[in-house]
Amino acid sequence: MSREAATEERAGALLSETIARIAPTDQASYSAARAALDAKTKPRGSLGRLEELACRISAIRRTQTPGRLSAAIVLAAADHGIAREGVSAYPQEVTSQMLANLAAGGAAVCVLARQAGASLVVVDAGVVNPLTDARIRPLRIAAGTANAAEGPAMSREQALEAIAAGIAVADGLASEGIGLVALGEMGIANTTSASALCAVLLPADAAAVCGRGTGIDDERLAHKIGVVRRAIAANAPDPGDPLGVLAGLGGFEIALLVGVALGAAARHLVVILDGFITGAAALIAARFEPLVGEAMIAAHRSPEPGHALLLDDLGLEPLFELDLRLGEGSGAALALPLVHAALAILSDMATFSEAGVTDAGR
Amino acid sequence: MSREAATEERAGALLSETIARIAPTDQASYSAARAALDAKTKPRGSLGRLEELACRISAIRRTQTPGRLSAAIVLAAADHGIAREGVSAYPQEVTSQMLANLAAGGAAVCVLARQAGASLVVVDAGVVNPLTDARIRPLRIAAGTANAAEGPAMSREQALEAIAAGIAVADGLASEGIGLVALGEMGIANTTSASALCAVLLPADAAAVCGRGTGIDDERLAHKIGVVRRAIAANAPDPGDPLGVLAGLGGFEIALLVGVALGAAARHLVVILDGFITGAAALIAARFEPLVGEAMIAAHRSPEPGHALLLDDLGLEPLFELDLRLGEGSGAALALPLVHAALAILSDMATFSEAGVTDAGR
Repeated sequence: MSREAATEERAGALLSETIARIAPTDQASYSAARAALDAKTKPRGSLGRLEELACRISAIRRTQTPGRLSAAIVLAAADHGIAREGVSAYPQEVTSQMLANLAAGGAAVCVLARQAGASLVVVDAGVVNPLTDARIRPLRIAAGTANAAEGPAMSREQALEAIAAGIAVADGLASEGIGLVALGEMGIANTTSASALCAVLLPADAAAVCGRGTGIDDERLAHKIGVVRRAIAANAPDPGDPLGVLAGLGGFEIALLVGVALGAAARHLVVILDGFITGAAALIAARFEPLVGEAMIAAHRSPEPGHALLLDDLGLEPLFELDLRLGEGSGAALALPLVHAALAILSDMATFSEAGVTDAGR
Repeated sequence: MSREAATEERAGALLSETIARIAPTDQASYSAARAALDAKTKPRGSLGRLEELACRISAIRRTQTPGRLSAAIVLAAADHGIAREGVSAYPQEVTSQMLANLAAGGAAVCVLARQAGASLVVVDAGVVNPLTDARIRPLRIAAGTANAAEGPAMSREQALEAIAAGIAVADGLASEGIGLVALGEMGIANTTSASALCAVLLPADAAAVCGRGTGIDDERLAHKIGVVRRAIAANAPDPGDPLGVLAGLGGFEIALLVGVALGAAARHLVVILDGFITGAAALIAARFEPLVGEAMIAAHRSPEPGHALLLDDLGLEPLFELDLRLGEGSGAALALPLVHAALAILSDMATFSEAGVTDAGR
């Protein structure tokens, strides 16, 4: 067996084992957390979705006392061959420039991660111009994908390799004691890739899942829809073959995040989604194993039209809607304080009996 | 002049002076903050409402560099004579029990204030059974209001006195260097009072502004609507006389929060609203001086039907909607991390030129 074939076999085995380890979340822990919240000094259910959040996290963590959880944001960056089709307002060089900015701490998600007390793991999954920087984890599959409008963005082997790398990242975070994994991404033209993936997997028409990304005009949007249609036609992927869909239309950062989501769910970590691109990764992960959705929390709903569709498909209701369309994990970072607050309510509030307060709802 | 008359005259003068000091927020600072955000390494406007939040706070603070702001939550508690009409699921004794829980740190807002790094100022504006506790600030107007269903809840003098006390609280916070003031409240039956206030001031039918409060059934809701109608009929307030409306139908905690809102706006503090009851206080404040609304941020929209109506009246779009119906300032506390994040984006992110990133939007 060639070295490449051996690597592929190992990656495939890791994916299969990971999927096999993903179980339904623990309903006994959910119910126990619900009962604990009902004993707290507040009318039953009066903290609304914050209570639901605490219960869901208890179920994911398989304990009624999840306590305070450490958070990491995994930001994967990569370049997309499809950028050559002129689908973005920004030139491809910006991916590597932003990678440097992310490493230096100047990007939005760096600021928001510090605010939220989360660590930020910046991964180069395959940008065209790599940087040597100790703050960037090099998990490069190649120097950008091929142009999906002309054929497969990557080989099935590359897709598997990226997924395996993501699973390993999640395993590492779990071993370090991280409980919350937020997903983030950066890659010029990656809303085009995400749109094509969603169009095939939902399925939906290209026009229904294409939006303005970081800010394109009507003319470029029409062009983008055409490019997505060409990419789907060039690859003719089978919606029942998530690896094939991912290889044909995906990006390395998306493939890596599929692995992070699957690996995190297998290790009982809470997966916090950001916007449309991390949502596309979540959708692919759910096509490999639908139960992975139970480990996910949707931070926000973005203006990208495909985002609402994929969240509905995943059965996830976002926590807020603030017209965020940056990516990087910025929306997921903004959701972290709500997650911490929900867990603090569960662990720190007094009960009716502890506080000597009359409980009308008993 | 009697001592009471002198107190009333002083309180009236303080209210007039405070209202006179409330100016439009500073549009030059708004525009400067917008320009600063447009130079940051992200597509223009891609952080959506977070950017708008940073700009609005810059305008309120009258500086393009508001920096990190310290936050305080002012929670005012009081009892309501209208509780005798059986409008709440909880007995009146719970107000004082919860005041003890708030002082001891066991209530929801205590947990959320700690999470958000905010100080919590617990004010007794007039509960029936007062507690002697150094952690409670006694600004008691009386031992609960009279039953508004039978006549005025309080005298005009008492309403003025409570407003003046609130203005003094805001002045104290401003002097201590607080930049963000979140409003919170506790008082059994105070959604009934807030419903009556909104019905008169919006104006709206009682049925359109009455909700389930902390959790009453259909029968009790119908009864509550009838009680609100009786209270309005018994007081026949003039909607053009906010002090008269407040005295007839209000609570001491609501009156005190009217003063906090007005005093905070006069001192260029950012006022963060919680749910329906703090919203009713905001509405009254806006009837005294419409410009006060420019200093306000709506944290969330609650399921109370009157809340959406009053937010529309104030021209405020809430940051999130999480089915919160607890009060205490819990929703406002949950909004604080978003506010801090917006300000950190404005102050801490790198610009395109600092980071050497190509700016497509130039």
